[in-house]
Amino acid sequence: MAEASKRRLRLGMVGGGEGAFIGEVHRFAARLDDHYELVAGALSSQSDKAERSAQALGITRSYVDFEEMARQESEREDGIDVVSIVTPNHLHAPVAMAFLKRGIHVICDKPLTATLAEAKALYQVAEASQAQFLLTHNYSAYPMVREARAMVKEGKLGEIRSIQVEYVQDWLTQSLEQTGNKQAVWRSDPAQAGLAGCVGDIGSHAYQLACFVGNTQGKEVLADLSSWVEGRALDDDANILLRYENGAKGHLWASQVAPGNENALSLRIYGDKAGIEWHQESPNELIYSVLGEPSQRLRRGNSYLSEAATLVSRIPSGHPEGYLEAFANLYREFAEQLLTSTPNPNLPTLATGLHGMRFITATVYSSQNNGLWVPLTD
Amino acid sequence: MAEASKRRLRLGMVGGGEGAFIGEVHRFAARLDDHYELVAGALSSQSDKAERSAQALGITRSYVDFEEMARQESEREDGIDVVSIVTPNHLHAPVAMAFLKRGIHVICDKPLTATLAEAKALYQVAEASQAQFLLTHNYSAYPMVREARAMVKEGKLGEIRSIQVEYVQDWLTQSLEQTGNKQAVWRSDPAQAGLAGCVGDIGSHAYQLACFVGNTQGKEVLADLSSWVEGRALDDDANILLRYENGAKGHLWASQVAPGNENALSLRIYGDKAGIEWHQESPNELIYSVLGEPSQRLRRGNSYLSEAATLVSRIPSGHPEGYLEAFANLYREFAEQLLTSTPNPNLPTLATGLHGMRFITATVYSSQNNGLWVPLTD
Amino acid sequence: MAEASKRRLRLGMVGGGEGAFIGEVHRFAARLDDHYELVAGALSSQSDKAERSAQALGITRSYVDFEEMARQESEREDGIDVVSIVTPNHLHAPVAMAFLKRGIHVICDKPLTATLAEAKALYQVAEASQAQFLLTHNYSAYPMVREARAMVKEGKLGEIRSIQVEYVQDWLTQSLEQTGNKQAVWRSDPAQAGLAGCVGDIGSHAYQLACFVGNTQGKEVLADLSSWVEGRALDDDANILLRYENGAKGHLWASQVAPGNENALSLRIYGDKAGIEWHQESPNELIYSVLGEPSQRLRRGNSYLSEAATLVSRIPSGHPEGYLEAFANLYREFAEQLLTSTPNPNLPTLATGLHGMRFITATVYSSQNNGLWVPLTD
Amino acid sequence: MAEASKRRLRLGMVGGGEGAFIGEVHRFAARLDDHYELVAGALSSQSDKAERSAQALGITRSYVDFEEMARQESEREDGIDVVSIVTPNHLHAPVAMAFLKRGIHVICDKPLTATLAEAKALYQVAEASQAQFLLTHNYSAYPMVREARAMVKEGKLGEIRSIQVEYVQDWLTQSLEQTGNKQAVWRSDPAQAGLAGCVGDIGSHAYQLACFVGNTQGKEVLADLSSWVEGRALDDDANILLRYENGAKGHLWASQVAPGNENALSLRIYGDKAGIEWHQESPNELIYSVLGEPSQRLRRGNSYLSEAATLVSRIPSGHPEGYLEAFANLYREFAEQLLTSTPNPNLPTLATGLHGMRFITATVYSSQNNGLWVPLTD
Repeated sequence: MAEASKRRLRLGMVGGGEGAFIGEVHRFAARLDDHYELVAGALSSQSDKAERSAQALGITRSYVDFEEMARQESEREDGIDVVSIVTPNHLHAPVAMAFLKRGIHVICDKPLTATLAEAKALYQVAEASQAQFLLTHNYSAYPMVREARAMVKEGKLGEIRSIQVEYVQDWLTQSLEQTGNKQAVWRSDPAQAGLAGCVGDIGSHAYQLACFVGNTQGKEVLADLSSWVEGRALDDDANILLRYENGAKGHLWASQVAPGNENALSLRIYGDKAGIEWHQESPNELIYSVLGEPSQRLRRGNSYLSEAATLVSRIPSGHPEGYLEAFANLYREFAEQLLTSTPNPNLPTLATGLHGMRFITATVYSSQNNGLWVPLTD
Repeated sequence: MAEASKRRLRLGMVGGGEGAFIGEVHRFAARLDDHYELVAGALSSQSDKAERSAQALGITRSYVDFEEMARQESEREDGIDVVSIVTPNHLHAPVAMAFLKRGIHVICDKPLTATLAEAKALYQVAEASQAQFLLTHNYSAYPMVREARAMVKEGKLGEIRSIQVEYVQDWLTQSLEQTGNKQAVWRSDPAQAGLAGCVGDIGSHAYQLACFVGNTQGKEVLADLSSWVEGRALDDDANILLRYENGAKGHLWASQVAPGNENALSLRIYGDKAGIEWHQESPNELIYSVLGEPSQRLRRGNSYLSEAATLVSRIPSGHPEGYLEAFANLYREFAEQLLTSTPNPNLPTLATGLHGMRFITATVYSSQNNGLWVPLTD
Repeated sequence: MAEASKRRLRLGMVGGGEGAFIGEVHRFAARLDDHYELVAGALSSQSDKAERSAQALGITRSYVDFEEMARQESEREDGIDVVSIVTPNHLHAPVAMAFLKRGIHVICDKPLTATLAEAKALYQVAEASQAQFLLTHNYSAYPMVREARAMVKEGKLGEIRSIQVEYVQDWLTQSLEQTGNKQAVWRSDPAQAGLAGCVGDIGSHAYQLACFVGNTQGKEVLADLSSWVEGRALDDDANILLRYENGAKGHLWASQVAPGNENALSLRIYGDKAGIEWHQESPNELIYSVLGEPSQRLRRGNSYLSEAATLVSRIPSGHPEGYLEAFANLYREFAEQLLTSTPNPNLPTLATGLHGMRFITATVYSSQNNGLWVPLTD
Repeated sequence: MAEASKRRLRLGMVGGGEGAFIGEVHRFAARLDDHYELVAGALSSQSDKAERSAQALGITRSYVDFEEMARQESEREDGIDVVSIVTPNHLHAPVAMAFLKRGIHVICDKPLTATLAEAKALYQVAEASQAQFLLTHNYSAYPMVREARAMVKEGKLGEIRSIQVEYVQDWLTQSLEQTGNKQAVWRSDPAQAGLAGCVGDIGSHAYQLACFVGNTQGKEVLADLSSWVEGRALDDDANILLRYENGAKGHLWASQVAPGNENALSLRIYGDKAGIEWHQESPNELIYSVLGEPSQRLRRGNSYLSEAATLVSRIPSGHPEGYLEAFANLYREFAEQLLTSTPNPNLPTLATGLHGMRFITATVYSSQNNGLWVPLTD
């Protein structure tokens, strides 16, 4: 993938001030391919913190209120083209609406919103807007994930039978939220995170990845959620059974209380001809096993891969690309989509996010009812 | 573990004639540590095949009928001490009963029987006999599995929260039973295999392993079974949720239709202090991750391991022991138990097998009822 | 590592026009942490190509001649602070001299020069200049490499006995240079690459890595070089024995003709207390084995690591950082060194490069003399 | 591989009494496939120990003196067919001669002898005898090693260019011999081990493996040996360059002082078409990389393998076979060779051992002369 040609988009950011994690990631991602220039921000709702954060980043147009930011930026001639929303979940909907209504494109972190109702409302606002929307399900932008999706689509696996996906961490094994850790606090607070904890934070990624690579969607879900840590209001571990629209079945395990797991997102899909296996912590590799043949180790950057992988690779094989490069792929592809007006079918949209909220909602409902099969339709 | 001292037990075998798989494995296992001498067999119910098989193995006392064998052997002064039962599942109960009734010890392959009713009947017969019973859940005899069990018992993982176990193969991805493959034919025939296919054949191993290492038992089970291959009467893929008696929750995936998987039995257990991970295809290794510390790779044969592992190891670290060595550990420990009259709590018993049959039965029932939670008690 | 504070350095580039590989890498690296702004370039010696390349990158000050660029930039008030040299090896010395003489800092790709004589001359020029010099031995900037170096320094391995390093690729297995591949052509041309092929291109990286992590330098070297591909003037495979100043011994294998190897740089160091192992293709991991204890898997981003690793990490553990992030670490640290005037002892300098040229020269000489031990001193 | 048909060979053993390591391994190996019956032994030169050891093993014909054993056994009608020699190296020659002279077949542990002179003398004795000789280079009997050898032979790798082999342990990192450890004591004693330590003990295995799989022999060798541990008379670490008769070049690293390595024998061979990679600690797997294609993971027990691997496999894929199974393959094949009088070209012979002694001798000589290239011919 060659470097960007040179029209750079003006970018704003809401959230992502001092101490934030994902805001910094979005900035790295925006910078890597030189398609964006960060010029405005409402980095915090506390004015001193917003100001300090903006200064540290060299952003001159610093706001405290996102509504004010949306209004002013939409009125400037050199106003932002795109805003990145990197707040806790409960703010995604109001912030996104504010910008969409004024025709400013939105890049929003996942999950889409805190509740399904918000998601539906946001969806309607977006329908009425000319502006475009990107949901940063970043794991779907790894080159070998794109390769996997292309392989399933081309029928290399045959008819899909089983999808096994998991996303496992250990950072909430103990009650980190009681130590004041900012990331833990909001993620375990229903008012900020929404109706789910682990399922919303990482289960939603795992589910999107399974659907994206499997070229399908969940049809019904059955779940057994747990909150292992005393005093924790939301789930921190989830065993979920799925039946997909393409007929496949499978399991999704999401956990934030499994010691020894850092960010262990992995996906295995099996059809009647072949199986594939991908692990986020070794993202440059995809295992491909045709029934009766030796397993093959497909690796990023090689000429035997399809265009799907090649388009989102930067450097030669053996020079590992990582998390930031994959995240940057979304930023880059969204920029290209905006600049060329050509929709990219690989990009997660508001519809992706809305379906994701159905998944979260159905999962919680199933678990509350001791394991009902709950449909994932409207 | 030193080689055996020299009183050798006289061994008979039922099943395991030409073309059999597991019979040969039992013979390797019996031979390795020199505790047994194979002297009698009813290797096949077809007389010519029984005879040919016995000759090939140098067995002089060859029978066609297992009842006859049990009767005659029990009457000889040099009659067998122990019989190994390596037939299809539906014969386990009648054969075992024949020998137990005559005071001959039984080594029996898993699952215990074809149905729960048979298992209960067999249990009663065994209760009334002086003879002892070993069920060959061979995976529980790997040194690093023993180490894992000891670690859980000692509390090194803390309170157990999650148990993830899977046993995945690909050899039944297509309809192998229609090609006449002997192993496939009986395993997919309800009359010989019993009420379950994949769940009985390998799911039962996975479940026993989880319980054995977790030092617990399942309390209730919820399952979604599939028969992916057209015309196959029994399940070939199963997604199973479990709640254990120690409070842990988890998932068990068993499949024989996942291309690229040979004999991929793996177990992961997570507590509030640490997690462990073991893979049957790399059996000499156990990953141990204490929360907040680097993962450790414990390897068989090292002095830092506990007695639990050391007692079932033969050769120095780095010299891989495999499947046959683990299988042989059961034979060896059973011989020692018989010769010393000291019960070995690590050996799978008839009670283990009876509970396993409850698991199989409940799993099938849950799936037939679209995913009920079914208790695993009597 | 927090994002950069906001004084950005003005950067120029010599080489790196259309079709180049490493030039693009330098630009990604310069951009990631936002310390540099690329404002000038002599991207090619062909004027049309230079112009097209500059336009594609949005660079307004485009030059054809590097001398002219050095002169003009040094005279502008907004002239570049730093120049990146990403040409074939034979141009490193003249270009670097041109900028150093005018007080412009230099970032230069490795190996330092095409010949040892050039390296010495360049060294003298640099001695006389106020400007600073960075040699991009990028592999030494991976977080886990820094951790390894710190561990050796702290004595965690004890007295170092053995250093095994290798850098293995397969892209020159056939005569790629005869197909016109730009990277292959200049690397196999003595006039552009210098006196060594594989040893200069990747052997030099492996050697620098071994010395960097081992906190030592080679004392003498013995080599057996090969040119396996017909018509290739320079070496493409090298087996090299080393004796280090700290008393350690070891082997260095560099090859570009080993099918199945993409960019397989790996390092193992053993002392009398412990050993470590690192692989560039899994860069977020470092294996640490204390004698008699289980091996530990140290992973980037964890709190148990030292400051050495933490200072050059950006994102949490389990979110893989890759090649570009490591490369960017050098750019970032060089910027900090320039802005704070605090020398960073981890950065490869001109002295590093001069010693590297001694290594290359001695290696070639040893091989030409059928394996003499050749000292690595002046 | 089916189980053995039933003529069992009568086996004797010299060495391998209480506290021995390799003697027990030979007994496991002899037993596994039921081709041998251990009936006689001179298990120790101390009479009480010999007697106790024999009793523990159920051996009735116990000797103290191997000459006496050779004489008496050769005169009995039911005397042994084969003797296994599992003594320290310096006894290999005299014991082997005693039995060969009397027409008793010999299975002998490696290296062949303590000195090259002994090896030559033994070779002459064997030439004059009808009896056959097996040298237990057991690593060459792993199924995937056989597959690798067949692949090289068939030209799947093309013209071989590079052979990288290593055998690395850590058990002699400290001065274990001073603690009285039996294995360490004799291996570090020139009077028992011969002229080399690590090179003789494990370097000889690595070299044989490289030659066996590479279908070639070393032509000349250059070495840098070390004795890292104070007071150790023999080498414990060796970096060795090799040039092979087929034109390939390479490196051999043998070490017993590298913490974290248990029994890390590994081999990589690269030709102009493809490369292969095998690791003894994961012996059921062979990595095969055709230039420009994804690497393939060949695994034991699959139908895509050649007869070379299949003939020495016992159980289905995914059921790991280990060290003892490979060792047993040699015993089994030797039995078949003796019973069928058909020479098996895969078995290591006395000529293999004689060449191995040349390798050891030349290696030591090269190192003593600061790295001469020393020819491996007579």
